[in-house]
Amino acid sequence: MVNETQHPCSASSSSRSDGGSSSGSESSKDNSRCSTPVLDADRHERLREKMRRRQDAGDKWFSLEFFPPRTANAAVNLISRFDRMGAGGPLFIDVTWHPAGDPGSDKETSSMIIANTAVNYCGLETILHMTCCNQTKDDITGHLQKAKRLGLKNIMALRGDPAGEEWEEEVDGFNYAVDLVKHIRNEFDDYFDICVAGYPKGHPEAESYEADLRHLKEKVFAGADFIITQLFFRPETFLKFMKDCQAIGITCPIIPGIFPIQGYHSLRQLVKLSKLEVPQEIKDVIEPIKDNDAAIRNYGVELAVSMCRELLDSGMVHGLHFYTLNREVATTEVLKRLGIWKEDPRRPLPWAVSAHPKRRVEDVRPIFWASRPKSYIYRTQEWDDFPNGRWGNSSSPAFGELKDYYLFYLKSKSPREELLKMWGEELTGEESVFEVFTCYITGEPNRYGYKVTCMPWNDDPLATETNLLKDQLEKVNRRGILTINSQPNINGKPSTDPIVGWGPSGGYVFQKAYLEFFTSSEIVTALLKVLKKYELRVNYHIVNVKGQNITNAPELQPNAVTWGIFPGREIIQPTVVDPVSFLSWKDEAFALWIEQWAKLYEEESPSRMIIQYIHDNYYLVNLVDNDFPLENCLWQVVEDTFELLN
Amino acid sequence: MVNETQHPCSASSSSRSDGGSSSGSESSKDNSRCSTPVLDADRHERLREKMRRRQDAGDKWFSLEFFPPRTANAAVNLISRFDRMGAGGPLFIDVTWHPAGDPGSDKETSSMIIANTAVNYCGLETILHMTCCNQTKDDITGHLQKAKRLGLKNIMALRGDPAGEEWEEEVDGFNYAVDLVKHIRNEFDDYFDICVAGYPKGHPEAESYEADLRHLKEKVFAGADFIITQLFFRPETFLKFMKDCQAIGITCPIIPGIFPIQGYHSLRQLVKLSKLEVPQEIKDVIEPIKDNDAAIRNYGVELAVSMCRELLDSGMVHGLHFYTLNREVATTEVLKRLGIWKEDPRRPLPWAVSAHPKRRVEDVRPIFWASRPKSYIYRTQEWDDFPNGRWGNSSSPAFGELKDYYLFYLKSKSPREELLKMWGEELTGEESVFEVFTCYITGEPNRYGYKVTCMPWNDDPLATETNLLKDQLEKVNRRGILTINSQPNINGKPSTDPIVGWGPSGGYVFQKAYLEFFTSSEIVTALLKVLKKYELRVNYHIVNVKGQNITNAPELQPNAVTWGIFPGREIIQPTVVDPVSFLSWKDEAFALWIEQWAKLYEEESPSRMIIQYIHDNYYLVNLVDNDFPLENCLWQVVEDTFELLN
Repeated sequence: MVNETQHPCSASSSSRSDGGSSSGSESSKDNSRCSTPVLDADRHERLREKMRRRQDAGDKWFSLEFFPPRTANAAVNLISRFDRMGAGGPLFIDVTWHPAGDPGSDKETSSMIIANTAVNYCGLETILHMTCCNQTKDDITGHLQKAKRLGLKNIMALRGDPAGEEWEEEVDGFNYAVDLVKHIRNEFDDYFDICVAGYPKGHPEAESYEADLRHLKEKVFAGADFIITQLFFRPETFLKFMKDCQAIGITCPIIPGIFPIQGYHSLRQLVKLSKLEVPQEIKDVIEPIKDNDAAIRNYGVELAVSMCRELLDSGMVHGLHFYTLNREVATTEVLKRLGIWKEDPRRPLPWAVSAHPKRRVEDVRPIFWASRPKSYIYRTQEWDDFPNGRWGNSSSPAFGELKDYYLFYLKSKSPREELLKMWGEELTGEESVFEVFTCYITGEPNRYGYKVTCMPWNDDPLATETNLLKDQLEKVNRRGILTINSQPNINGKPSTDPIVGWGPSGGYVFQKAYLEFFTSSEIVTALLKVLKKYELRVNYHIVNVKGQNITNAPELQPNAVTWGIFPGREIIQPTVVDPVSFLSWKDEAFALWIEQWAKLYEEESPSRMIIQYIHDNYYLVNLVDNDFPLENCLWQVVEDTFELLN
Repeated sequence: MVNETQHPCSASSSSRSDGGSSSGSESSKDNSRCSTPVLDADRHERLREKMRRRQDAGDKWFSLEFFPPRTANAAVNLISRFDRMGAGGPLFIDVTWHPAGDPGSDKETSSMIIANTAVNYCGLETILHMTCCNQTKDDITGHLQKAKRLGLKNIMALRGDPAGEEWEEEVDGFNYAVDLVKHIRNEFDDYFDICVAGYPKGHPEAESYEADLRHLKEKVFAGADFIITQLFFRPETFLKFMKDCQAIGITCPIIPGIFPIQGYHSLRQLVKLSKLEVPQEIKDVIEPIKDNDAAIRNYGVELAVSMCRELLDSGMVHGLHFYTLNREVATTEVLKRLGIWKEDPRRPLPWAVSAHPKRRVEDVRPIFWASRPKSYIYRTQEWDDFPNGRWGNSSSPAFGELKDYYLFYLKSKSPREELLKMWGEELTGEESVFEVFTCYITGEPNRYGYKVTCMPWNDDPLATETNLLKDQLEKVNRRGILTINSQPNINGKPSTDPIVGWGPSGGYVFQKAYLEFFTSSEIVTALLKVLKKYELRVNYHIVNVKGQNITNAPELQPNAVTWGIFPGREIIQPTVVDPVSFLSWKDEAFALWIEQWAKLYEEESPSRMIIQYIHDNYYLVNLVDNDFPLENCLWQVVEDTFELLN
């Protein structure tokens, strides 16, 4: 009656004992367990598996194509766009290969580095395009090795546009995408998921539509896992193409490439490049409104939505690939109207995970980098192992040095002029600094009428969760407790809670109250006296820029400050206050005063000297209230400190 | 002002940065962290460190000496005594070396195996005695290597009694204890803590008291860590001895050996062996009452208490060593009257820890062996690593086979006749089995008037915690849900809770409700239907003796069912329901039906066939209610099942 197992992992132990003797201990020797606890299956699947799983579940998805930016500033903007558009839940993004832009280099704007950033820092499943014509095998292998090293797992294998007018096949060279597919499979076995391009109208250079289909089949049979198509203007174009593919035995997923028309000129340029013809019915609409960008975009959105609906309704299409042209509005609009833009506030962990394969098991981080996750990933990129289950288990190597903190993804998104408006063109004393902190907390404009929407330690406005503490934070910042990180205590809220929830549903999340701030040595002296009263309840670490360090952490152990209990799983404790990491964090936290704030002002200027004074003399303090079921006592600690000072 | 750290571990990071440059990232490279989270400092200290810490804290302690038993049955009793006397909190126990009893062998009664059991299975800090005269270096080294392998860390180095009347020193042989001390230090460096014997009246064979003191000093200077003295009858004897030791430069701890007089004959025998003289004032009291055992014991207790008080009051004595003669009453009485018997209901973890050094970091176990911790330790003794932090992290090797389950420490403490009275001389059907389970739960006598104080799966009466579930357990056992393990849900009780608390104070403990039972396939069929309603809330594993296995565990992950949150620490999750271990446990759980119960009856007898039928046809079921903050739903699940059956 019950001769079945319900999970793949159990198969071996159960099936083996089916035929076993009556009380054999044979099954006790079976060690085929899933060895790593899985919080989020997604993190452990390859792209083609994710695609398959979504298709099996009848779950429609989308993906987004971007090209590499031309300037470092544009790169900062593109990465913000990755974060914003990543929130809608794309199955993957892809980054085109830009032969003219030194695509495999370490430049901030190269295809390779942009794809690297998307995977590692934005946590997005990413496909890196790669073209092969006019390149040597060694070059290609070098690019692929580098991609693998950076954690990239998916390649879109393309021929690319030949450089000269009169292109000739090279013997033993890469002449077609299929050569690149074969090369990847030869040299890298099954490591990469490979995508190839399909042409619903046939490749413009192909002898015929049928010949082009045969080429596509060759690419698939050489090892490609799925196909993304060139853009097209009519749904029937794609559906016919798909049937033709199936008819000749192509069974892998074929993803239609969608191009929402966003403007007259971009359409013309694209059409020219892709040698496609715009259907007359579209031309008829566009020509009369060609100078009205908004009208064209509205039309483009309408057209894309109706085409996508038809594709999805056909039952043959499970995912849609968008050519975004690095723009946000039109694509997001289409996705929202289709109902497949899914801004899921649910997080697998309280912090943004990286998609690098070696970070798959990572499920613990120090709380200090809560607002600077990209910096944390950057400073730990050389680690071989990542804390899993418990921070204390990891004999983690040191954090990376700060010498590279100027790299674009660690820079502020805002330009100098804006920062000056927010943080003050001229500071008159420590109080003007208190004011900036206070305005950031309250959201009120500063004395010059500007809202403070970021701080050196927080490149984004206040988190929703921190909003829960807003009134108290405002009060203490006004008086010189300059908060840079905090969380309320949580005693078992559902894991689906829209503000503090994370992890699978059906669980409960918990937090210890946390408060981190810079403050003067006078306040620290009083605080230490007050903390004696709270000795068993509050753990503290207090450090200045020179590294003078006071703590009551037992045996310098990490303190878990966020944890979750889920059905059928072990406890997950993703955030800790780790005394050792705190000393690395303090270097970064203190450096940000100088690098981001003081340097806005002239050397020797009074404003700069004020920030320098704070940097040299203030302490960085963190406090944890261990009694999470009781009312947060940290505000009382601060209140007592102010009272003692009066 | 704050140029100090408060914990030894932090010394390096702070002191190094004291003189550092203004924002050096030097301290961020400092990786001298305590790498393993420490729940219980005790588990990580050597005996001499524990002794030192207790002395520094002004904390009085005691230790207990036992000799190896003569028979396997006596060994089972002695181990129960270890467990009972271990509850009083001895700093260590020691096991004498019994040259006539093949002391280094694998016999159940050898000194080596008894000490092994004390350390590994009873979790007691243990000193193994070892004598050296008439033995070769190779023999001694072999014994020491074996002791080390078994996890023994402390040796009492003794000369032993020469075999012949006319003993002569051997050149290059072991003639004195000091030779053994040197040999241990030479061959095993600092691995062992070494104890040596001191003679407050001088060794009977020594040339003089002073010469004996010089021998003692030699032993200490050769590497002994502390001294335990021969028994004595007057406190001033010890105090003078101690001063004399100090006067010649012996500074290590000296622990007085206390012998509570327990009877006329044992006193005479001991005095003869140790060549001591009983003071006249004691003889005067004892001789007239020499046939009244109780009177002598009472006197012995009085005498010991008064002597111990005087020793402790002297301020020179921090610990007392008791010669128990393997008896419990007198020593326990003395300890209780002195107020140093400390039955601490507080547990570092919810289960009894082993004192084997390689198990120091162990802090997770499957719940299945909750009532059979010795069996769990036995079946995992070959593991090289133990789960720490999380079960899923350990790529644990298989559980040991059951072929040795007859070993004495896995046997029932009760003899066959008693078991038959409890479990029934004759069974008439499955219902008589239900009745035995029910009587065990209720504590009521069975139909023959005997209380059922143990079961094959529980060698002890019901745990206090299980008592919380008594009424419901009784109800379901009557109807054929034969429970063998259960725990209530706990939503954050203080870690100091006398019933469910564990771990350091100031923390909170949690549990998911758990229920494990044997039941018929009819009930399982209904249960599975009912469980569909509870799919997201209840995890289950259902298996029969053949290994047919049904579960809804996600990806066969372990489910944490006990965890604790403590100030300044990471989460501890000491108990899990692990699907893979469950299959090893089921072999043991099913085998106990046959080995402990069926085999009480004649082959082919109806009683035996009833147990055999249950063994062959019943299922072993475990249920976890994941919703620990809500009322335990497992009783409702069972109720629903019975309803469905009706």
